Amino acid sequence: MRIAVLGVGLLGGSIGLAARGRMGAHVTGYDRDERALSGALELGAIDRTASSPGEALAGAQIAFVAVPVGAIAQTVSAALAAADRQCVVSDVGSTKCSIVGAIDDPRFIGGHPLAGAETAGVEHARADLFDGATWYLTPSPGSSQPLFERLREAISSLGARPLAIEALAHDRLMARLSHLPHVFANVLVSGAACALAGEQPGLRGGPIDAGPSFRDATRVAGANSSIWVDIYMSNGEALIEAIDEAIARLGDVRAALADADAHALTDWNERAATQRARLAGVEPAAGAAPDA
Amino acid sequence: MRIAVLGVGLLGGSIGLAARGRMGAHVTGYDRDERALSGALELGAIDRTASSPGEALAGAQIAFVAVPVGAIAQTVSAALAAADRQCVVSDVGSTKCSIVGAIDDPRFIGGHPLAGAETAGVEHARADLFDGATWYLTPSPGSSQPLFERLREAISSLGARPLAIEALAHDRLMARLSHLPHVFANVLVSGAACALAGEQPGLRGGPIDAGPSFRDATRVAGANSSIWVDIYMSNGEALIEAIDEAIARLGDVRAALADADAHALTDWNERAATQRARLAGVEPAAGAAPDA
Repeated sequence: MRIAVLGVGLLGGSIGLAARGRMGAHVTGYDRDERALSGALELGAIDRTASSPGEALAGAQIAFVAVPVGAIAQTVSAALAAADRQCVVSDVGSTKCSIVGAIDDPRFIGGHPLAGAETAGVEHARADLFDGATWYLTPSPGSSQPLFERLREAISSLGARPLAIEALAHDRLMARLSHLPHVFANVLVSGAACALAGEQPGLRGGPIDAGPSFRDATRVAGANSSIWVDIYMSNGEALIEAIDEAIARLGDVRAALADADAHALTDWNERAATQRARLAGVEPAAGAAPDA
Repeated sequence: MRIAVLGVGLLGGSIGLAARGRMGAHVTGYDRDERALSGALELGAIDRTASSPGEALAGAQIAFVAVPVGAIAQTVSAALAAADRQCVVSDVGSTKCSIVGAIDDPRFIGGHPLAGAETAGVEHARADLFDGATWYLTPSPGSSQPLFERLREAISSLGARPLAIEALAHDRLMARLSHLPHVFANVLVSGAACALAGEQPGLRGGPIDAGPSFRDATRVAGANSSIWVDIYMSNGEALIEAIDEAIARLGDVRAALADADAHALTDWNERAATQRARLAGVEPAAGAAPDA
């Protein structure tokens, strides 16, 4: 199996490491950042470097495009132009409608692994990054079935769990599972920063011990703008819908608080406990004690 | 030093363990739950049990009331009625205005340690629970200065960092650092659950791999209703204010998304990165890579 990886950052580098180590694949890498490319070679994430997407694609059966969201469409097009008729091209972007809508080729199948870390760059790549992680695939009605099967098997070999989903459903889901949590994290730090700015000298400005619930909820606040502004904008429609839903839900809580309606607040909180448990695949627990 | 602990759960038990181990204090415990009380004795969190708040208070120089928020005012009143003139009474409730407003006694000083865990119950009590944690104290103009000093020193001895703050400022801060993150966690799981319910069979209902940002942001979703509904209601006014602020901030993000305004989104995200770093006392980092 010959695999091309276009963009050798954290995700592309990890694909290379896993493909070489677990599939015995021959991996050719391309990146417009030459330092990243030589780093990937040194790390053993790729077998050889290519000086263009076209060179990387020569003889490849699978090509993974792992560049920032804003550059995916262009890079996928370049890959498809160079790719063999029997080569499947996929990407790892966090949103799928914009790319799937822009590319009409039976050889392209959108993808999105739920993996990553707070670190970026090929130096953090790991062969086990995808172990057990869901890897969404968004085939279109026009996608080649044999190429889809090849991609699906390869992703299993990388350690991930491939799961097919419509591009629109994927984006609506990601708006709620990933993008809205990032928006909320930003909103929380802004609220805390403003509240602290107005308080007494002992608390003004400096570091605070905000407690574990705040720390966890704001871990991703202000995440890398060069990546996240692209993600927000590429999924703007679904994210706006998710924000509108969230505002409506906050309005319901607000109303229950204004009415001092303990019954409504209890129902709401119990429903969240059940929903959280179902999402996580565990029975509802006794719940968290106050921690901050 | 003789210390009374009324309510020997996670927090009361940990106070007892730390007071005995680090201050050499003699600790008397009371809890209306006899199993918790005998558990605390077995664990060594208290030296002896009392069968009433009054009995626990006999000879105490400090009393900590560590009962659920809804029972604090009544228990503090009972403690003050039984306490010596030179005994300081404090509590560990998550909101302070309602209790500080209800109690007018120079011997009472409200408190709130930013410590805890997802576990409740004396069996999880630890002598080091408060190590390095901020422990807010909310003295009133009428509070006894010598009793405040005694309480402050004891809290330092327990391992925490006492920090005086006005009750109103405390509650407004907690609305933003703790209560709003809990509300957001509930809103996030509801949004995800509803989105999943409408999707294709492969995703319907069951457990999902939502990725680390969702897991962290929803860790406290549906937290113990018997504790949290009291907390929400006792801080209703400040929490409504925090929700209104959050809705306004979400509206700003929504507008930037609707305008596809990359500049505004970048500014907003960079501001959050700076605010997060300042709150945490670290330099702004390169930021988080997309992780879900």
